[in-house]
Amino acid sequence: MSTAFAPLKNDTFLRALLRQPTDYTPMWLMRQAGRYLPEYRATRAKAGSFMGLATNPDYATEVTLQPLDRYALDAAILFSDILTVPDAMGLGLSFAEGEGPRFAHPLRDEAAVRALHAPDLAKLQYVFDAVTQIRRDLNGRVPLIGFSGSPWTLACYMVEGGGSDDFRLVKAMLYDRPDLMHHILSVNATAVAAYLNAQIEAGAQAVMVFDTWGGALADGVYQAFSLHYMREVIRQLKREHEGVRIPSIVFTKGGGLWLEEIADCGADAVGLDWTVNLGMARKRVGHKVALQGNLDPNVLFAKPDQIRAEVERLLNSFGAPAAGSGHVFNLGHGISQFTPPESVTALVESVHQISRAMRGGH
Amino acid sequence: MSTAFAPLKNDTFLRALLRQPTDYTPMWLMRQAGRYLPEYRATRAKAGSFMGLATNPDYATEVTLQPLDRYALDAAILFSDILTVPDAMGLGLSFAEGEGPRFAHPLRDEAAVRALHAPDLAKLQYVFDAVTQIRRDLNGRVPLIGFSGSPWTLACYMVEGGGSDDFRLVKAMLYDRPDLMHHILSVNATAVAAYLNAQIEAGAQAVMVFDTWGGALADGVYQAFSLHYMREVIRQLKREHEGVRIPSIVFTKGGGLWLEEIADCGADAVGLDWTVNLGMARKRVGHKVALQGNLDPNVLFAKPDQIRAEVERLLNSFGAPAAGSGHVFNLGHGISQFTPPESVTALVESVHQISRAMRGGH
Repeated sequence: MSTAFAPLKNDTFLRALLRQPTDYTPMWLMRQAGRYLPEYRATRAKAGSFMGLATNPDYATEVTLQPLDRYALDAAILFSDILTVPDAMGLGLSFAEGEGPRFAHPLRDEAAVRALHAPDLAKLQYVFDAVTQIRRDLNGRVPLIGFSGSPWTLACYMVEGGGSDDFRLVKAMLYDRPDLMHHILSVNATAVAAYLNAQIEAGAQAVMVFDTWGGALADGVYQAFSLHYMREVIRQLKREHEGVRIPSIVFTKGGGLWLEEIADCGADAVGLDWTVNLGMARKRVGHKVALQGNLDPNVLFAKPDQIRAEVERLLNSFGAPAAGSGHVFNLGHGISQFTPPESVTALVESVHQISRAMRGGH
Repeated sequence: MSTAFAPLKNDTFLRALLRQPTDYTPMWLMRQAGRYLPEYRATRAKAGSFMGLATNPDYATEVTLQPLDRYALDAAILFSDILTVPDAMGLGLSFAEGEGPRFAHPLRDEAAVRALHAPDLAKLQYVFDAVTQIRRDLNGRVPLIGFSGSPWTLACYMVEGGGSDDFRLVKAMLYDRPDLMHHILSVNATAVAAYLNAQIEAGAQAVMVFDTWGGALADGVYQAFSLHYMREVIRQLKREHEGVRIPSIVFTKGGGLWLEEIADCGADAVGLDWTVNLGMARKRVGHKVALQGNLDPNVLFAKPDQIRAEVERLLNSFGAPAAGSGHVFNLGHGISQFTPPESVTALVESVHQISRAMRGGH
């Protein structure tokens, strides 16, 4: 099926991930298909609910492509949610209006943990159908990124039953019953790897693991309970599909202190949040991985001149591109729903123009 | 007045802050006087409200001393709130039951920012009265810590009008109108320094600056908008009072990547959250400052044996004490209101016993 896809016209993003020379710094934005766009809000209204949007391949395709029609972004990312996997495990995901996600059956005792199994991938067919449809409709414009939450980040929601600001329940289990926590993480790692491999088979050209809550863990605990299982996911991933390399990205928000260890996990690229100095990060990882990031999304509330100045500061911090290093520009977290869409225009133009000029282009 | 205070019986905490030898690792807990203690909840009920508690020196003294009666802690910390200073600036602080703090008059436009001035310290006399009364009632048992929020952390609440999970308003002002943000921070730095100096004059024997939200800032921005103003506070602080050194501690939660720069700000000690490896931190700061931290408060939801194992891991990570280095044991954030009080017993005993044994004591 995927052999029928159109050839790729803009491979800048994939080249940067593989630390190959590029004419400019490619960019995309976490949550680029989202509420800050009026056209997204219109589709979301048609779909009736967030899950109605995410589970319908037509709608998912529509919103995935919307930001590409507005902006010269260098990658598309599947519109979905990281909690589709635990939902398929039977935890009962719902999104109450104006609140975060909720699981009807969180993992709160040993019996629930022991009953956990990697899901039947057939329950996630709507995701793979969306991947294939998006890839087809992209028609080779830019590559398509597939993604999943990390084993630890999924576990946070699965035990807490929703969002949390102190991770009390999941960390209580981690410290009090590490055996149960390791069981959850081991099941999650198997599930995430299978889920990402199925996205690759359906048409994803790169994959990213979002470890949104790894930075909430203590030193030593992060390595054993989050990074270890991301390494396990990466180890099980298809490195190529139909003869084409499929680069992988891992992103632990708040993981800057552990950058050397993260860069050693087998992924091709590491995402960084805005607390990390890009130039220092580049020195710390050497030629081991490409880097992705790391503008504070709140910069987009400033005027175009200031957005441009922050972009310049960041690109200068990374420094002149050289053989063996790679940089994908992104935010350090998802774009805010309150972002003025015209700020993104200024951002994309700045990144492309300044990075092209740094390479001696025009 | 303060010359009438009883001589100090246990100066282990102050010695560790000044990197002098100690028989064991001293400890206290952020938010040690708090909701996890039934006796605190009883006083809180008598006071009627959080502000009723914080503004009454008798009640403030009562709750400050409560954890010392239960546990062999090596320091007391003034019971108060970091938002007393902006409240005294006229922003109108209130605490709605079950919600966080709220300001009636947040700083949302240029006129409000330009009208901001450091407060008349007379409006904070209830704090200084509490300090003196606590110091007197401590009767020399352990030293008393005074504290304030950092200029940036105060600014977050002053602009947002309360808590925030994305700091959208305060960062929008920072990026869009850095001149206004610098004005707020400059006023805050003056106010915080005067506030801490008045606490020292009232009887505080060490002071701590809580930069709870510095870690939300981007690299480069943190240095210019948070650390710069903490350095300004430290520079204006009384280094001694009536011939006795008053050590200072700064704590940026999430600031581990900037440790070398923080250690250079003039404070005697630097607080660390649990993401930082204590042994590596010690190497990074050398003999420049003492370190304070950094157990994840959620460890206290495990059983005593596991609490003890985590304490041992942490003390071993810092390593054997040596001349010129100092460690004060603490959590990496405030203790959770859900903590079982008996977990703190296990924690205090573990820290004291293990650290004494590491020094060859019994």
